[in-house]
Order: sequence, then structure tokens, then C-alpha cells
Amino acid sequence: MTLASKNSISFTKQTPQLQALLDYLHPIEDLEALSALASWDQQTYMPAEAGVARMHQVTILQSLIHERLTARTLGELLSAAEQSRTEFSDADRALLRQTRRAYDHATKLPQNLVEEMARLRSESVDAWLKARANNDFALFAPYLQRTVTLKREVADRIGYTEFPYDALLDDFEPGLTTRKVEAMFDPVRSVSTTLLQRIQQSGQVIDTASLHGHFPKDRQEALSEQLLRVIGYDFSHGQLASSQHPFTTSFGAPFDVRVTNRYEEEYLPMGIMAGLHEGGHGLYAQGISANLARTSLANGTSLGIHESQSRLWENAIGRSPAFWQANYALLQQAFPDHFKEIEQANFVRALNAVKPSLIRVMADEVTYNLHILIRFELEKGLVNGELAVESLPGLWNAKYQQYLGITPPTETEGVLQDVHWTSQFGYFPTYTLGNLYSAQILHTLQQTFPNFQAQLAGGDTGFILNWLRENIHQYGAIYQPEELIQRVCGEAPNPQYFVDYLTQKFEHIYNLPPTSNTTK
Amino acid sequence: MTLASKNSISFTKQTPQLQALLDYLHPIEDLEALSALASWDQQTYMPAEAGVARMHQVTILQSLIHERLTARTLGELLSAAEQSRTEFSDADRALLRQTRRAYDHATKLPQNLVEEMARLRSESVDAWLKARANNDFALFAPYLQRTVTLKREVADRIGYTEFPYDALLDDFEPGLTTRKVEAMFDPVRSVSTTLLQRIQQSGQVIDTASLHGHFPKDRQEALSEQLLRVIGYDFSHGQLASSQHPFTTSFGAPFDVRVTNRYEEEYLPMGIMAGLHEGGHGLYAQGISANLARTSLANGTSLGIHESQSRLWENAIGRSPAFWQANYALLQQAFPDHFKEIEQANFVRALNAVKPSLIRVMADEVTYNLHILIRFELEKGLVNGELAVESLPGLWNAKYQQYLGITPPTETEGVLQDVHWTSQFGYFPTYTLGNLYSAQILHTLQQTFPNFQAQLAGGDTGFILNWLRENIHQYGAIYQPEELIQRVCGEAPNPQYFVDYLTQKFEHIYNLPPTSNTTK
Repeated sequence: MTLASKNSISFTKQTPQLQALLDYLHPIEDLEALSALASWDQQTYMPAEAGVARMHQVTILQSLIHERLTARTLGELLSAAEQSRTEFSDADRALLRQTRRAYDHATKLPQNLVEEMARLRSESVDAWLKARANNDFALFAPYLQRTVTLKREVADRIGYTEFPYDALLDDFEPGLTTRKVEAMFDPVRSVSTTLLQRIQQSGQVIDTASLHGHFPKDRQEALSEQLLRVIGYDFSHGQLASSQHPFTTSFGAPFDVRVTNRYEEEYLPMGIMAGLHEGGHGLYAQGISANLARTSLANGTSLGIHESQSRLWENAIGRSPAFWQANYALLQQAFPDHFKEIEQANFVRALNAVKPSLIRVMADEVTYNLHILIRFELEKGLVNGELAVESLPGLWNAKYQQYLGITPPTETEGVLQDVHWTSQFGYFPTYTLGNLYSAQILHTLQQTFPNFQAQLAGGDTGFILNWLRENIHQYGAIYQPEELIQRVCGEAPNPQYFVDYLTQKFEHIYNLPPTSNTTK
Repeated sequence: MTLASKNSISFTKQTPQLQALLDYLHPIEDLEALSALASWDQQTYMPAEAGVARMHQVTILQSLIHERLTARTLGELLSAAEQSRTEFSDADRALLRQTRRAYDHATKLPQNLVEEMARLRSESVDAWLKARANNDFALFAPYLQRTVTLKREVADRIGYTEFPYDALLDDFEPGLTTRKVEAMFDPVRSVSTTLLQRIQQSGQVIDTASLHGHFPKDRQEALSEQLLRVIGYDFSHGQLASSQHPFTTSFGAPFDVRVTNRYEEEYLPMGIMAGLHEGGHGLYAQGISANLARTSLANGTSLGIHESQSRLWENAIGRSPAFWQANYALLQQAFPDHFKEIEQANFVRALNAVKPSLIRVMADEVTYNLHILIRFELEKGLVNGELAVESLPGLWNAKYQQYLGITPPTETEGVLQDVHWTSQFGYFPTYTLGNLYSAQILHTLQQTFPNFQAQLAGGDTGFILNWLRENIHQYGAIYQPEELIQRVCGEAPNPQYFVDYLTQKFEHIYNLPPTSNTTK
């Protein structure tokens, strides 16, 4: 494993052209930060009836950002900077790469297409909400059809080598293609369906009663804050708020990185696990080198790598016996009555119960990626022109039956489940990629720290965070995802680590008999 | 009393020139709203170490706003709109007036002066904090001297008829001059010092023990929210947060108007009265006609009128026996142990106790304006070149002795008390103007509703809010302060109403023997 030297995280600023480019780019990032602030506020504290005023504010920001990002001046500054040296620091090179990419994308898409997408997105969300309320996919279908058509146009304008879907994947995960996803996902499909089958055949059903009860929101929030502190989230550069959907955002990483959470008063894991998940995202953004502040490099390098961080803290750490050995007392202090009779081992076992369900965001580690696979297969077909929008509900249900053995009783719980298809295609695969990266990173961590589980059980998470900071976080978006995994793990992204992780973990939890095709 | 017809609150948009001007102005107001959001967040939820990132974000917003406000395009659009008709609606006329004023101010001040003021303001706040920490005015004096010099330059560039200080007063309270302040303040000085003397000579000291105790912050916050609902503050267009100094702000009035409060756990009035005070500001902004949204008219017309609204709810209503007759139960429910033995009348009496103190923001209604008078007399002298900065500490103490009979033991509690002189001159008088306007408006209200106190005691505040909305709030900044008072009260601003209000109220509370010079 090779680690970059620290000085590669600085911009050299050795040419006036690079400095001029940075000076031009900083205000764009400041406006992006304000846009993120406006969105965060909208989802946390904004009064219910202030939506129209906020819409105007976000629109002007987006228009100012777009104006600056497509200005001829930027093209000139960028060309001059690109030609100003023959050798660049890693940060310089990444800045030029990211800026070139953003400039080319922005200038390749005509203004009227951008505006039509924004309008359609808004109409599409309304139609989706209405379709869900009426359990009627047909109300959403025309908007989905139009979105797919526009996404095709975007792909055509941006360009791709093999499939239109590739252009959309690349937008969320630089370098990703349909072929690569398929190659990565095949073993995931196989291990998930096999494990699910073995668990079901074992006849075991884990008792999850310990997760249900009455857990007042304010105590859950205090607990969530404690757990964030445990994993090293820095409240002097962060804040925890509540929102309908948990998320992480930053207004100038690494200085101001905020997480939100949501609490279900009758079901504890929602708040605990989502808190650790968002905490994982937050640690990534808080760990970015301050040298990269106010540039597009002060972000995670891709959605997949970001998700690897959230999943590592949520699943590999947050659902492990070792973590709860160190932190179970916090649960007991928060809810003494509930936890006084519940054994730690039973609680952790319940956290890892496997049960096929209809809802992706509530899925366990074994079935989660099957939800993603279904969405990937469908959206790939839609964008590449192999599937008709009208065929979606039937295909959705058939795939749920095939992979998970259950059929959604309504379209609202089925094909209308996620908001993504109102505007985002190529996003879903990054969730599974995150799980795969996470397992590969965990493997490297365990190789690096042979006493990983013992240290974790002893209450230490700092060694993990320091290592992640040193090897991943500080670089922000300097290295592209595949390059980063290669640098960190000494090997290209490889799904086998996830296959092994999942198999070993759930063979152990369910005490499954070995099979000939178990990978050890 | 004449009330404008409702349709005068609309922009006619009857000329394309007016429409073009509005189209140009809307984004400026959107950017102002974002700037207010950034500032609100900074004072409520922003993590401690995010200040530098936020500074960059606010700087780019201010620079975009300044750019648009000084652009030749605006000058041309404005001239074209001014000449596009001979008759305008009240809203049109006000929009042209406010825009002309903002454009002229912005273009009269050269960019380097604006930047130097911003820089000095920041340095000056640092110096003031340091001077306070060291109880040493001399550390602040050079910055204050420089600020006074720059304010003189601003006054010279903007222009004035008689005194440089007039230009600064006019900036906060359009139309206000030194002469007008003096004429308004003379009777205030007289009634305040006289009443204070009579109260002190009466030998009575009101027992304020009922205000002290232990009042947990979360219960105070819940109570503050209840009281805001009582006076009609609309949470679907608002929010209550905590901050070090209570304030009200809006990001697109009337749709998103937020208030903050601060709670002292050992002293109840801070949270209760500041909550009603900010609520009064909030009601004003929430009551502005939606027709004026996204223009500079969607603000209170002046600081003085704004303060009249906060003072009306805080003092005239919030410290009245009638209000607490209706709402004392809320206090008792919030703090049952504390209030079970305390009689309502004693509590209200304690809320109105008069006692000279050193700190303006904690002052009672009788002494409050004496604090303002001292600051007015000093800053007027500074700006008009009649006083030297070095003489301030001595003069401050002498005036405190003269008006309030006490001398600050430290400069921190004396001349270094307020942050205003780090950048704002001409602001202080608007506090007292607010009290004067408030009494005049209260008089009109009581004339209009002969059963005012009985209705209030019965738990009704809606009739007050409706009348304020109808007569004041909805107009936003359409009418200038004096014009507004004339329209609402049928008479120009007249300090006698405040003299009468104060005299009657405190003669009653302290049961003072009548004197020959008591005005009834």
C-alpha cells in the first residue's frame, strides 16, 4: 500500500494562472455552500409556509452558479491553468480535472434543457406524491417517461462509449460504467440470494422484541449525539438536527458539516443506525484537508466512496458485538427500564436479524443489495431503451418475487417507493458500491490492525478514524474512486471482500452449516 | 383618521418599465434574504469553528448585492420607471422612493470607503471586545475615532441640511433630524427624571423576589412559544430559536419571519419579556402584505416604527395587569412550584419595578429612555465634531450620575457597554422613538376600543393584532414613519402621549401623590 505524501494535498499556486483559477472558483463554492445551507434549513427549521420564498432564493443561487460555471472567462482561466505547467501536484491536477469536467458538462447542456429538467423535476415530484397517495403508477408514468427521455438527451450530449446509462453512472461515480456495475454486482446477487436461502432454510427467526418499545424522541436525540461523539464526530465543526429523511450536508467542508436524524418512538434502530450512518458521512467531510476548502475537491470523491464511510460505521462497526460491548451502557443509561432485562448479545443479534421486506431503507445487510439490484436492472433497461415505462410495475413485482420471495401488495410500496426516479438515474448502484468498498476497506483495516475487534470492544474507535483520515478523508476528491481504493487497499475494487464479509458474518450469526459453495 | 384603500398596497405593474424594475429588484431581495439566513444560522445553530467559512459566504453575497445595487442598469431602469407614468399607486411610489434612495446611497459611497468601513467594523468589534475584557476604553478609542471620521465622510457624501449627524439618523429613520430628536426627547428627559425622583422620594421599593428562582431553559422555551401563540405569532411562517442576543429576522417577509430568545435560568423576565418583544417585531413582519414580497417594501418602514411594535407588545401589553389576568395560568402551569404561592398582582407589580441600573437592556420603562438620552447626547456631539473621543468615559459617567444618580464602577459597565459604536451612529434614538410611537399608537387603540383593557383581560389579543395589521403592518415600508403615524393616529408624532402613559402608569403603580406639574 502506498500513501501519498502530505504535501500532495496542497495546491501549489506556483503559477499565477492556477491562482487566478482558484480565485475564480472560490466564490462558486461559497454560493454552493449557501445553496446547501438553504436546503438544510428547508429540511430542518424552515416554517411550513415559506417554500415559495425559499424557491426564489435557491433559484437565484443556482442561476448565479450556472452563470459563473459556463462563463467564457472560466474556460479561458482553465485553459491557461492547464497549460501553465507540465507537472502538477495531485491537488492541482485534481482541481483541473474536476473543473474541466464541471465546465464541460455545464457548457454541453443548453440552458433550456437545464431549465426543463428543473421544471420537470418539480412536476415529477408532485406527480409521484399524487401517484403514491392514489396507489396509481399511471399518474406518475408520463412524467417518468419524460424524465427518461431527457436523461437520454443528457447522456447523448455529455457522451458515452457503450451505453447511454454509462454517462449517468459516471455523473455520480466518476469512471463507472454499466459493464463495471454488472461485473461487481453479479457476485453480490449470488451471495445475497444464497445466504437468504440458507438462512430461511435454517428455520431460525431472530427475536427482535428488544428493538421495540417506547423511546422518547429527546432521549434518542441525546443518545444519538453521544454515539456521534463516540465515533469522533466533531461538534465544533458540526451540528445534529432532525429532519424527515436523515442526511448529511456541508456548507464549507471541513469547517461546517451537519448531520440530521429521524427518530421512531416505537422502534429504536432507526435513530441509532441512521445516526451512525450519517455520522460516517460526516466524519468523511470533517476529515477533508482544510487546504482544499472552498474548492470542488472539498467533497467526497464519489457517492460510492461516501457510502462506504457511512456503511462502515453503520454496519461493520455499528452492528458489531465489539462496538456494543463498549457502548451498551449508553443505551442502558438512556432507556434504563427497557434495557434492564435485555442482554447485550440479544440486542446485537436483533440488530442483525435478516428478513426480506418491501422497504429498501429498512432492509438488513443481506437483503439490502437485492433491493438495489432490482432498481439497477430496471433503470438500466429504461435508460438504454430496452424497457418501456408501462412495464415497470409488473417487472418490479416479478423481481421482488424472484429475489426476495415477496410481492408488494400496492404500487406505493412497490414501484413508487423511492423518490429517485423523479430526477436521478444512475444513483442507486452507488449504494451497493458503497457496501462493497466498505467491506474492502474493512479488510484492509483488519489487516493493518490485527487487534481491530479487541480495540473496538475496548471502546477505542479513534484508531479507525485516524486511519480513515490519513488514508481517505483528507484527500477529499483528489483521487477518483477506483484510484483511491487501489491506493488505500493496494488492489482494485473487488466484490469478493463483501462476499466474504457477508458470508462469514451471517454464517456466524445464524450458525449456518457450511456448504460446498461457501467462500471462506 | 384616514385609512388607505387596500388596493394601494399593490404594485400596478401597469408600465413595462415598472415591471422591468421589479424583475431586476427581486433577485437583490432574494440575496438579502440569503444573507439574513446566513446571519441567523450563524447566531443560532452554526458550529463554533465555522466562522471563517461563513465570512466568505456572506462576503460574496454582499458583493453581489452591492454590484447589482450600483449597476448602471439599475440607474437606467429606475429613471425609466420614474418617468413611465405621472400617477403611481402608493406602493409604486414607495418602491421608486426606496430604490432611488438605495441606489443613490450606494453609488454615492465609493467602493473603497465601503470596504474600509467593513474592515474597520470587524477590527473595531475585536478592539471593543478586548477593551471590555481589559476594562480599558483606551484600547477601543483609536478605532472609535476612525469610525467617527468615516461616519463623517459618509454623511458628507450622502449630504445633509444642518448637521452631519442628520444624515446618519435619516439612514435608520427616514426623515429624522437632530432637531426633531431634540424636540421629541426634551419632554422624555423631563418626565423620566421627574418620575424617577418622585418614585425614589416615595421611599417605596417593590419586592421582585417573585421573578427570581430556578426556571429550566426548556420550560421557559415552551412558555415563550405559548406566549408567542397567544399574541398571534404564526409558526407556519415563523420559528423560535435560541441565541446569545434575542433578535428577529426574515428571509422573505411575510413568509419566513423568525425570532430568537435567550433564557436566564435564575431570572424569569428576561425570557418572557424578550420573547414578547421579539414577537412584536415578528408580528409586524408577518403582517406585511404578500403583494410586497421580494421588494425592499417588505420590511418595517423604520427602526422606530419597528420598535413601536415590539414595545407595544412587551411593555404596554406584556407588563399590564390585564394581559396577565388572562395568561397567568400559563406561568403557573410552566412553573407550578414557584408560582403556587405568588399572587398575580404581585408578579405584575414586580415586572414593573423601577430601579436605576447601569445596564440599558435590563432597564425599566421609566429609566430606559435616560440610557438612550445619554447615548444620543454623546454620539451627536461626536459626529458633529463637538466632543473628543477621549472625553467620552468622563462624560458618560457624569451623565449617568446626573440622570440616574449612579456611576459605573468600570468602563466595561459604562462607556463600553454597547456594541453599536463599533459601526452604528444614529441608531440609539430609534429605541426611544419606538417607545414614543408605541404610546401614541396605544392611545389610538384605546380610543378605538373603549373596552381595550377588558378585552385584553378576557384573553383576547386578536382585536389588537387585526387593527395593527390593518393600519400598520400590511403597508410594510410604503409610508415613511411620520406619514404613517399621521395616517394611523390622525396626528404627527407627539411625545405627550408617552409622557401621559408613563406618568399615569407609574403614579398608579407607586400610588404617587399628585404634583402640580403632573400631566393628566
